Amino acid sequence: MSLSSLPVFADVTAAAARIAPHAQATPVLRSQVLDALSGAALHFKAEHLQRGGAFKFRGACNAVWALGEAQAARGVITHSSGNHGAALAQAARTRGIGCHVVLPEGAVAPKLASIVRHGATLWRCDASIAAREAMCAQVQQQTGATLVHPYADPAVIAGQGTAALELLGASGSLDLLVVPVGGGGLAAGTRLALSALAPQAQLLLAEPAGAADTACALAAGARRLEFVPDTLCDGLRGTLGAPNFALLHGHAEAIVVDDAATVAAMRLLWQVLKQLVEPSSAIALAAVLAQPERVAGRRVGVILSGGNVDLDALPWGAA
Amino acid sequence: MSLSSLPVFADVTAAAARIAPHAQATPVLRSQVLDALSGAALHFKAEHLQRGGAFKFRGACNAVWALGEAQAARGVITHSSGNHGAALAQAARTRGIGCHVVLPEGAVAPKLASIVRHGATLWRCDASIAAREAMCAQVQQQTGATLVHPYADPAVIAGQGTAALELLGASGSLDLLVVPVGGGGLAAGTRLALSALAPQAQLLLAEPAGAADTACALAAGARRLEFVPDTLCDGLRGTLGAPNFALLHGHAEAIVVDDAATVAAMRLLWQVLKQLVEPSSAIALAAVLAQPERVAGRRVGVILSGGNVDLDALPWGAA
Repeated sequence: MSLSSLPVFADVTAAAARIAPHAQATPVLRSQVLDALSGAALHFKAEHLQRGGAFKFRGACNAVWALGEAQAARGVITHSSGNHGAALAQAARTRGIGCHVVLPEGAVAPKLASIVRHGATLWRCDASIAAREAMCAQVQQQTGATLVHPYADPAVIAGQGTAALELLGASGSLDLLVVPVGGGGLAAGTRLALSALAPQAQLLLAEPAGAADTACALAAGARRLEFVPDTLCDGLRGTLGAPNFALLHGHAEAIVVDDAATVAAMRLLWQVLKQLVEPSSAIALAAVLAQPERVAGRRVGVILSGGNVDLDALPWGAA
Repeated sequence: MSLSSLPVFADVTAAAARIAPHAQATPVLRSQVLDALSGAALHFKAEHLQRGGAFKFRGACNAVWALGEAQAARGVITHSSGNHGAALAQAARTRGIGCHVVLPEGAVAPKLASIVRHGATLWRCDASIAAREAMCAQVQQQTGATLVHPYADPAVIAGQGTAALELLGASGSLDLLVVPVGGGGLAAGTRLALSALAPQAQLLLAEPAGAADTACALAAGARRLEFVPDTLCDGLRGTLGAPNFALLHGHAEAIVVDDAATVAAMRLLWQVLKQLVEPSSAIALAAVLAQPERVAGRRVGVILSGGNVDLDALPWGAA
């Protein structure tokens, strides 16, 4: 991907207008208990209350509605560990077009159910990224559907940036903004919003220790393409995308978090906020709690990215 | 208790003014998915987002602030399976007075932790109602503290009625209002608000099959005092109080719900609303889903009464 195709802040504001008729303007939640515990003024952007239960609807919806008529008519396709697949299916429905989802083995049951409920055509394949991409290419050739990559697509990145846009509008100035990072769609979109609206604020990326390719990439100055993720944060197992890296390098810092700390943070969010967020969201609070000196007395934004939890496989054992 | 001491609607509006500086005005949540599933327009009053994680803070706060100065100075005392105890401790703190809580064995761990966190003095006793009351009388004699009964106290009933007051203000007219019933504090307070503001609306009381004394009492026209509750709805194990019965008889109908249906409804609320509510709250949605013909096309209020769940003892086995 050439640098010229990187999205810019104007794409984020355009995305906000494009998705406004379809997406939820999610609330910003506060908690005296969690403020006291962290020493910071925490502003939680509640994207688990987004349509489909995750921020992913923003990017998918922007990508679907950015297509021309003829292209849209042939449908869209993606491969996804779950939330993006469900989001694209739901977004395609808002435009009345077809959606194909290539799903690797091991997808979380409620996410899979959600994809089916929204009427997408499912294609199963092995869990490897190569297997997903091969299956995608095959279905694309058959159908003419447009690939909407889960995190590297410029329209997806711009759409994800609308969450931070809304958060900054609601919270006022922030000193720090913490988001989870997997493939980097939310992270890169957030970077665009932050650079334009709060250039003094720091962007922290919360990343599982078992999938810390972004931390490596930001430190080494080059993406780390081959690794086998090992984390219960099923939404954060992807590899940082090329445009995502280009947007984030030099503009963000990764905080690596053990799964045990993520589970502890998830229990806190459940018990105190009474909000059912998934591990891939709770990791952002875990990153905050791991940096007490850095966040003390600061205004901190935290994007709670999704709430699609498999209630039959809760990870308390890892706590 | 004489009928002359029954609270009236003016006590509910007075309570609303009294607790306004301390209580949360909780939101009313909607869900297209749950509306489609139930066939009704559901309006969920989110009392699990109340201070202390349950509506109980409303009644406790009203009782604490209704005391005269001298009486307040000697503190307050109660016996409670958990939520009311925590609420009274928290309410006492807003006025800077002492709080004693008599706790039966078997209290849910997070509720106990919450009582301790708010600085109350704990007194343990056996689980029987007689044992609780004996211990209460003993501590009262020692301290001069005022007993604030969990559900039969008129100030508590009036305080609990403020949840329905807010709900009706936010939702507009309702055809049905569904609340859980244990001792009947929330039920009786809701009845006062409903009779004054929406006299045409029906009040349904969702009650566990394993503690269905209210259903018996409303049918027989007299309270049923001796029974051994057997339900996982730990907030609904109390016996309907005398003033509660007086206010509800002829003005409400009980819907008896199996624990399995309650657990299924709780999972729905977790997965769809992403809200961590406890079984004693979810029973109200279970009652709605058990009455499809009755709720079809109607505007239905549902009070989600609390969200204090023991995450280490989730009742999926009962589903």
